[in-house]
Amino acid sequence: MAEKKHTITVLVENHAGVLSKVSGLFSRRGFNIDSLAVGQTENPLLSRITIVATGDEYTTQQIEKQLNKMIPVIKVKVLKSGSYVSRMLTLFKVSFAPSRRAELLQLADMMGAKIADAGEDCAVIELCDTYEKTMAFEDLLKPYGLREVARTGSVAIEKAKLN
Amino acid sequence: MAEKKHTITVLVENHAGVLSKVSGLFSRRGFNIDSLAVGQTENPLLSRITIVATGDEYTTQQIEKQLNKMIPVIKVKVLKSGSYVSRMLTLFKVSFAPSRRAELLQLADMMGAKIADAGEDCAVIELCDTYEKTMAFEDLLKPYGLREVARTGSVAIEKAKLN
Repeated sequence: MAEKKHTITVLVENHAGVLSKVSGLFSRRGFNIDSLAVGQTENPLLSRITIVATGDEYTTQQIEKQLNKMIPVIKVKVLKSGSYVSRMLTLFKVSFAPSRRAELLQLADMMGAKIADAGEDCAVIELCDTYEKTMAFEDLLKPYGLREVARTGSVAIEKAKLN
Repeated sequence: MAEKKHTITVLVENHAGVLSKVSGLFSRRGFNIDSLAVGQTENPLLSRITIVATGDEYTTQQIEKQLNKMIPVIKVKVLKSGSYVSRMLTLFKVSFAPSRRAELLQLADMMGAKIADAGEDCAVIELCDTYEKTMAFEDLLKPYGLREVARTGSVAIEKAKLN
């Protein structure tokens, strides 16, 4: 079956070891995790894990079933393409020739990025956007001198209709 | 020894199973992971895992040593307080009375948050900021009707001096 990217959200109890269990299930099934993000929810006893992984339809269904069987798992959703909003956060450390500073600032502004920290010839720029726009911005930064990139996995939430 | 929050970045090879190994080490050592974020770096063969965890100084040193011994681990950094920039990303789904829409938009604008999706009485708001400011914004949203929160762990990068 054709492999494609799937976005899966897993609501879990906030215990030590749960993340290791959940990510272990994916690797045992041969699913490569493209990105993973985990953080507390509106309820401090629960965490939500968002996983973007590549695999076929059959394996995705198997993983959904097995996740649902795990004791610390409360709810699993495989999000349908087009039904959700997805964002990732990236911090870029860029070095630059001082003569190109104004140009770099304009570029960041145009893409909706913010300067998180700046020195004479180096800046940390933050961008919160979709995967596609983030990759486009990264390509634009490369000619300046991209020194380090730290990013989160994508998080996703269903669109703003009442459900 | 006193327990405190530590921010640890781990540069790893991008294999299936690495995340499960790294997070398993923390849970075996009784370190509770407050947040974890993982994503590709500037080199697509490598991922960077940023972990915020609570524990004492001794255990942190032990974890650093053990991480350094793992085969897929390339580099471990325990970041020193004040030496780095840290950000997290949160998507908030908020329902609201239509009469309070303008007020909610002002609040989001004031806090540097963006509207990612909106319906008549529900919106998805994205915020990229520090842990402290994110928690403050969440408290401000609660009276409207906070329906769902999805967030990434914090990512951190050392400040913009040349190193």
